[in-house]
Amino acid sequence: MTRTVVESKTKTAIIGFDQPFCVIGERINPTGRKKLAAELEMDDFSTVEADAIAQVAAGATILDINSGAVFSNKMAEDPRYADNNFVEPMLMKALVERVQAIVDVPLCIDSSVPGALENGLAAAEGRPLLNSVTGEEERLELVLPLVKKYNVPVVAISNDDTGISEDPDVRFAVAKKIVERAADFGIPAHDIVVDPLVMPIGAMATAGNQVFALVRRLRDELGVNTTCGASNISFGLPNRHGINNAFLPMAMAAGMTSAIMNPVALPIGPKKIAEKKAEIEAAGIILPEDMDDETFVKLFGMGSTKSGPGKEMEAIRAANLLTNNDPNGGAWIKFNSANAGDGGAAGGRRGGRRRRA
Amino acid sequence: MTRTVVESKTKTAIIGFDQPFCVIGERINPTGRKKLAAELEMDDFSTVEADAIAQVAAGATILDINSGAVFSNKMAEDPRYADNNFVEPMLMKALVERVQAIVDVPLCIDSSVPGALENGLAAAEGRPLLNSVTGEEERLELVLPLVKKYNVPVVAISNDDTGISEDPDVRFAVAKKIVERAADFGIPAHDIVVDPLVMPIGAMATAGNQVFALVRRLRDELGVNTTCGASNISFGLPNRHGINNAFLPMAMAAGMTSAIMNPVALPIGPKKIAEKKAEIEAAGIILPEDMDDETFVKLFGMGSTKSGPGKEMEAIRAANLLTNNDPNGGAWIKFNSANAGDGGAAGGRRGGRRRRA
Repeated sequence: MTRTVVESKTKTAIIGFDQPFCVIGERINPTGRKKLAAELEMDDFSTVEADAIAQVAAGATILDINSGAVFSNKMAEDPRYADNNFVEPMLMKALVERVQAIVDVPLCIDSSVPGALENGLAAAEGRPLLNSVTGEEERLELVLPLVKKYNVPVVAISNDDTGISEDPDVRFAVAKKIVERAADFGIPAHDIVVDPLVMPIGAMATAGNQVFALVRRLRDELGVNTTCGASNISFGLPNRHGINNAFLPMAMAAGMTSAIMNPVALPIGPKKIAEKKAEIEAAGIILPEDMDDETFVKLFGMGSTKSGPGKEMEAIRAANLLTNNDPNGGAWIKFNSANAGDGGAAGGRRGGRRRRA
Repeated sequence: MTRTVVESKTKTAIIGFDQPFCVIGERINPTGRKKLAAELEMDDFSTVEADAIAQVAAGATILDINSGAVFSNKMAEDPRYADNNFVEPMLMKALVERVQAIVDVPLCIDSSVPGALENGLAAAEGRPLLNSVTGEEERLELVLPLVKKYNVPVVAISNDDTGISEDPDVRFAVAKKIVERAADFGIPAHDIVVDPLVMPIGAMATAGNQVFALVRRLRDELGVNTTCGASNISFGLPNRHGINNAFLPMAMAAGMTSAIMNPVALPIGPKKIAEKKAEIEAAGIILPEDMDDETFVKLFGMGSTKSGPGKEMEAIRAANLLTNNDPNGGAWIKFNSANAGDGGAAGGRRGGRRRRA
């Protein structure tokens, strides 16, 4: 039974076929988050700390730490800041230290800059996950020695020097090559977590079936754990959460054991609240002047879990039950079942009749 | 490629590995619906007709017609009504005639009474699905000749004279026996839709994995389509829709091709509306006296699709996309994708970075 052990100073997260699905929180990543990058440029880690706490509270058992910031202001003063090989190693060290000072979950050190990977590995307590190696020759030769030196598990992304293949057989072959090359370094398959690269169904209609088959092969033939950017599947489509909510249980049924994703239910913003208030006042409803937004949101059922990332965590929890990997050992279910009347093993089906829900 | 063809006078529904998931509407069933049974006893078919229309509108492509009513008042006057062999054949004929007069989808004739099955088959136009045969000897000998005589497909429930086994291997063996016995009658495997009997996870923690493995075996080894009472899995548990919403995509990923279920989003009841009104008035909100319930429900976001059966249809639609069996051929996705910017096949993943949702 494949188990990838990831550790902080005090906590262990296990990615494995017989484990609850491992949620790797993706929020601590300045790539494409201009506001966060600007904060980090001013040594302000308050958003990072808040994101760390919120993601752990929402169910992440590993936190991804990505140092891919662009420091535009400093760049103007000092041309060295235009080079990520200069910026990221410093930033990674600071991010790792800040995050592990405030939460105790294991970390995932995420950068395309080798110096940032090494600094993250040096700063992290315990046994972090490294993110990532690819099948590119240069990357293999740079990253695998680090993996060996620090004795850590690594995310292996199935692209190589030819790019990302749309052919799942090629992506499988790239993953196999990485596993074999790692073995040459003495790195076992159970320390490799393959990201088979989820294509968006908007660009490739067969992307769902393709990744399910690929995950199954990676598990059966290479014995490796798997991960993915969970939201890629719905990229560019309407109702992304609806699609993600079906994708995650299906991927889990195929054997996917982790995902890099946002577990936090989005809070509803003040703009949306103001719009809703205007709408209901237009309908003749009079609101008390002193009603705070929190009470308003509660009364008007505007909880973001209706369609937000919180629903994806619900889908994961349900799928953990359905794959018999519930982290609570199904204890609450057994309790409930005992109070549920005649819910015998036959599931309400007798002599060709069905009990209706 | 296994295809089970079910027809009304004018419409064809195909259950198959390469088809959109087939939703068989379960609402027309007086078993456990006392109010409906009382209506039918008085020859009132208005609820049946409304249920037929609503289920088709919600996405059912086949309607199950179950005649299992108990006519308590008539029973008091005429002891023959205590016998389902007396009541159901008459009722089935009436139900089939009423339903096919008002909607044009194929029907599923559902009874434990042989006379009701025969009457339903005789009354139904086209090629209905028969529900059901089991592995019980008496049932096999009664139902398979009907299946042969009317040349219809049949639901095969995997229990036999020893009852319902908790061992999935036994349930597979029962299904295999039914398929073999049907072959003796000249009935092909593609006309058999196996219900492998979904156990509730509340009673058996391995029930999810068990049914996924069983569905896969039925498909790979017997080449048959499958169905289930979709809500059995969550019987006796809290948040049933949350569990069902994960179960359906997982079962579809395993190869389940249809389900007998309620596709209709439940309307919110007057009691719930009154409770909510009291809650918000207690918070100091003044509602206009002339506000109708419909406007109120709309403003307060109390749409039942938040957690009701409507969400299960959303999960099915998303899973159809993910298994590349979208009934619209993914046309709307392609349209949307063309407008989605740079959503290339790489899914926003470049050089070890991830675009965040």
